[in-house]
Amino acid sequence: MSAGRFITLEGGEGAGKSTHAGAIRDWLQARGRKVLLTREPGGSPLAEEIRRVVLQGWDEGMGAESEVLLMFAARAAHLRATVRPALAAGQDVVCDRFIDSSYAYQGAGKGMDERHIAALEQIVLGDFRADLTLVFDLPPELGLGRARGRGEVNRFEDESLAYMGRVRDCFLRRAAADPARCVVIDAAPPLDEVRAALLRVLEARL
Amino acid sequence: MSAGRFITLEGGEGAGKSTHAGAIRDWLQARGRKVLLTREPGGSPLAEEIRRVVLQGWDEGMGAESEVLLMFAARAAHLRATVRPALAAGQDVVCDRFIDSSYAYQGAGKGMDERHIAALEQIVLGDFRADLTLVFDLPPELGLGRARGRGEVNRFEDESLAYMGRVRDCFLRRAAADPARCVVIDAAPPLDEVRAALLRVLEARL
Repeated sequence: MSAGRFITLEGGEGAGKSTHAGAIRDWLQARGRKVLLTREPGGSPLAEEIRRVVLQGWDEGMGAESEVLLMFAARAAHLRATVRPALAAGQDVVCDRFIDSSYAYQGAGKGMDERHIAALEQIVLGDFRADLTLVFDLPPELGLGRARGRGEVNRFEDESLAYMGRVRDCFLRRAAADPARCVVIDAAPPLDEVRAALLRVLEARL
Repeated sequence: MSAGRFITLEGGEGAGKSTHAGAIRDWLQARGRKVLLTREPGGSPLAEEIRRVVLQGWDEGMGAESEVLLMFAARAAHLRATVRPALAAGQDVVCDRFIDSSYAYQGAGKGMDERHIAALEQIVLGDFRADLTLVFDLPPELGLGRARGRGEVNRFEDESLAYMGRVRDCFLRRAAADPARCVVIDAAPPLDEVRAALLRVLEARL
């Protein structure tokens, strides 16, 4: 039995990642693969509890350091309890957000020193990396409009367009720096066109 | 107004840190200082919530990475919301456990790579250090017996004596490496003798 493949979905808000995750699962299952859909932050009971702590409002506020440390604590739990066991059992794992979101949101977005994020990546991931990362890219003003249209603007989504621009640039920069792992998919067209582009990527890469 | 002093109490279980923290507060207040007593993990609402997550039992277990990241997330919140504002307002802060406990428990005790803990220290503390660290030292078998006598054995305390020996050695090693910051106090004698030794240290150091 071969180990499963680890596929991560990245990109700003409103890019349709959740919908596309389902399409990837269907595509893999149609080829006889067992598939686990998961997301970050979250993906295990402990990680979901940490997610709740991160997303709730705190009168004292939440500093950038606490936020990034909680995100990586949740990631460590998710990997340990959910992702690694599934991969070892031969399942493909499709994960909505992973390490690139830490660089994009806490790093480029909030200004946390990228070297700190790299240190946390080393602690939690070691040399573990996704087999394929799909970056769903669209302009911030378009993504924010879509997210608001769904009524799904949470603390992270309710940020300025300048912030979301830095987030987007970081995703694109990381994808360009690691083309063996990352593929950028233009998420601005209508959903069925994006899905068609996605399926072409899956045919080529998996 | 001068900045307050940051005094940390370290050592294994059953060393009487909580009792001694009260004695330090009384000693400082008698000299006209305003004093904040606090503890880790905890010390702010967010940090206390993280403490609860760390200390509760999880069916999935808790890996060393999640544990140390949660501890540092709580520390960042504690510093931001409680410790730094008090020091800036001229209060002395007496803190039951701080950074040395991370090296001792997650590092020496649980085997987390010390370089990872140093990286987390850099992220959360930068060059912030305690003005005085009191290490209450006693043999693990004695400390564990005292803690059990109080019925206060939690998940961290219910560990093997070998583990507690590694924890103790780490505290002593760190104290020896930084004598300008640390003083070791023998916590094996009866409480009033330890308190007398403590007060001599305060007279000499503060």
